[in-house]
Amino acid sequence: SIDSQRLWSSLMEMAEIGKTPGGGSGRLALSESDGVGRRQLIEWAEALGCSVTIDEIGNLFIRREGKRPELDPVAFGSHLDTQPLGGRFDGVLGVLAGLEVLRTLDAAGIVTERPLLLVDWTNEEGSRFSPAMISSGVYAGVFDKQYMLSRTDRDGVTQGEALRAIGFEGSAPIGEPRFARFFELHIEQGPVLEDEALEIGVVDGVQGISWYDVCFSGQAAHSGTTPLRLRHDALRGASRMIDRLLDEALEQDPDAKITFGELDIVSPSRNVVPAQVRLTVDLRHLDDQRLASLEARFLDHLARATEHTGVEATYERIWHSPAVRFDADCVAMVEDSARQRGLSFRRMPSGAGHDSVYVARVAPTSMIFIPCLGGISHNEAEYSSPEQCAAGCQVLCDAVVRAAG
Amino acid sequence: SIDSQRLWSSLMEMAEIGKTPGGGSGRLALSESDGVGRRQLIEWAEALGCSVTIDEIGNLFIRREGKRPELDPVAFGSHLDTQPLGGRFDGVLGVLAGLEVLRTLDAAGIVTERPLLLVDWTNEEGSRFSPAMISSGVYAGVFDKQYMLSRTDRDGVTQGEALRAIGFEGSAPIGEPRFARFFELHIEQGPVLEDEALEIGVVDGVQGISWYDVCFSGQAAHSGTTPLRLRHDALRGASRMIDRLLDEALEQDPDAKITFGELDIVSPSRNVVPAQVRLTVDLRHLDDQRLASLEARFLDHLARATEHTGVEATYERIWHSPAVRFDADCVAMVEDSARQRGLSFRRMPSGAGHDSVYVARVAPTSMIFIPCLGGISHNEAEYSSPEQCAAGCQVLCDAVVRAAG
Ligand SMILES: NC(=O)NCCC(=O)O
Ligand SMILES: NC(=O)NCCC(=O)O
Repeated sequence: SIDSQRLWSSLMEMAEIGKTPGGGSGRLALSESDGVGRRQLIEWAEALGCSVTIDEIGNLFIRREGKRPELDPVAFGSHLDTQPLGGRFDGVLGVLAGLEVLRTLDAAGIVTERPLLLVDWTNEEGSRFSPAMISSGVYAGVFDKQYMLSRTDRDGVTQGEALRAIGFEGSAPIGEPRFARFFELHIEQGPVLEDEALEIGVVDGVQGISWYDVCFSGQAAHSGTTPLRLRHDALRGASRMIDRLLDEALEQDPDAKITFGELDIVSPSRNVVPAQVRLTVDLRHLDDQRLASLEARFLDHLARATEHTGVEATYERIWHSPAVRFDADCVAMVEDSARQRGLSFRRMPSGAGHDSVYVARVAPTSMIFIPCLGGISHNEAEYSSPEQCAAGCQVLCDAVVRAAG
Repeated sequence: SIDSQRLWSSLMEMAEIGKTPGGGSGRLALSESDGVGRRQLIEWAEALGCSVTIDEIGNLFIRREGKRPELDPVAFGSHLDTQPLGGRFDGVLGVLAGLEVLRTLDAAGIVTERPLLLVDWTNEEGSRFSPAMISSGVYAGVFDKQYMLSRTDRDGVTQGEALRAIGFEGSAPIGEPRFARFFELHIEQGPVLEDEALEIGVVDGVQGISWYDVCFSGQAAHSGTTPLRLRHDALRGASRMIDRLLDEALEQDPDAKITFGELDIVSPSRNVVPAQVRLTVDLRHLDDQRLASLEARFLDHLARATEHTGVEATYERIWHSPAVRFDADCVAMVEDSARQRGLSFRRMPSGAGHDSVYVARVAPTSMIFIPCLGGISHNEAEYSSPEQCAAGCQVLCDAVVRAAG
């Protein structure tokens, strides 16, 4: 059995790195504190005698040798990067629970048939550099390495520069090693398990995601002299689209997820009618067809808002991740592990994207969820109890051992 | 007669300082380029043998002695600071036309009875530090000096620090000297004169202005897992208020001016539901009572938007400048000057705020407008022709000479 106290201590220790005023964690991808967190993980892993390799985009592979080194490893892990004002569990739990699996086997003197591989994926969150899950995506061949390295943050720093700045541009070739199976433990980040008082979510799929960049263009004008009817107010255009699309969705499609997470007026000034507004759009649906129709409704509202307010808009779909169904065997392994430990569980889809989405394209994959307080995530107040974390870690450990023999 | 070519050359030379990519000027108040512009003006003034004093908040007074130095001077001027992406004429014309008046008198060897005083007021625009017209306001006793010095920009720099950084914290006491009269030449910044093909606006008043800071507060949440109906989306609250207030005003009150010039999501991230949105509100009306009812409608929409979207909001009215009527004698002097030069003119109110608003509280004051292309201002494309600038400068010169004897 895993050591609940040891797992909790590592979680709390990691949370000190990039700690935020509101009690959360702020370790944006490839920031200095992401580098410090990664080095802490490597130190812990090396203390167990594991070997560490880093690939060309900073993915971190921690290997515990098996009896049969020639076999593909059973892999597990998640990510150490967070939102700007993120929680202490999102991603981190999956990595440190993986470390706890390695520590448990080490303490028990158990060597598995297959090698084990704990992975920390670079930039899962997609907050500093979009899109999300990009490095597991490059690993799986969905994105090009050059595309990943050239993405920029708000200050124009490329992901490649940021990688070098914290010293995590490795030399291991991308896409290696292949995994026999991949398991990812994560907090649910939603309210379902808590509402139903269940201990484990057996995740059988992930909803579809589309991200857009939109730019509204009007005309700068003086706030005091320009009559409302002669204005081309880019912020009015953006506001109308946001207001009307959300109102309609709330009435007609309660399962749709629509988020405008970033909105910037270009060269803002109190007494200037905004000439240009840039904003991001995050659309999700459990079902690919309903996501497609949500995207069509968004574009329709965009067109209507520009017409109504006399501004123009351009848009680009910068990311699309179709809905995913996980491997039936991996799902069954997680479910059996939960059942045998006497934990309450249900099958469920994930609303958030995860590295498992892309890994699932190249290896049999599934995920384990645990509840989190109020379903709150991407928020400093994010919380799962030591017992909840331990239950998830135990299921991960059992599934991994089962898969690795 | 003033020298149209010389005036135009100084305008174009000043426009080189802080030149923007789109052909405008960017000399934010108390920025480095504001300092460079001020030093250029001082150099030009000293070449005419004028004396320069700077008061404790950076207002610049350029004095040309009169035959009777003991009399209060006739003053004129405007401001050299601009919007971030501003035009080449807004404010600058009033200062450099004043310089052209001094040069014309110098070249003609004319000495007036009263001393003349060309003024460059600190931070008229109110873009970097709010509110606008603050230093003419301190001069007139409307604001406290400490209040002015303690206002901060978006980076937390105080106006006092910025003043010292560019070396324009003077020692002359505030509120001195008193003016016998004050005249300000400015571009109209609106479409009326151009529409009516008139050369001069005889400005008899300025509309009322109220500025608010508003903060919407909701709850940060994951964009993929949080159902729309459980969200407290601060941006949705802000968008609804903007959309509905503007739509209503366009239908019911076409004279109202409503502008949301700055809007910031606090700690923005693509996949996080915005927890906090800060925005600025600029409300104007020609009539104080209609401004008051516009403010009431804004607050009503604010309340309705928060209720509809499940977020909270706080607001503060940070500035209120009531509608102003200028001195009848000064207005008549401007009108007579235009008539005697054979220029077409009309009386009109100003939609923009100007330093004259506050100076009018302590000295007889009026303003002169010239047309600008398409009524466009607070925009890099702002334009008035050399002939239009010269006509305004001539009226200013005549009014000043008339007032100074
Ligand atoms: N798990 C998680 O929060 N991933 C970030 C990518 C997403 O927005 O779903
Ligand atoms: N003239 C001018 O643009 N002044 C700025 C203050 C205002 O917003 O009216």
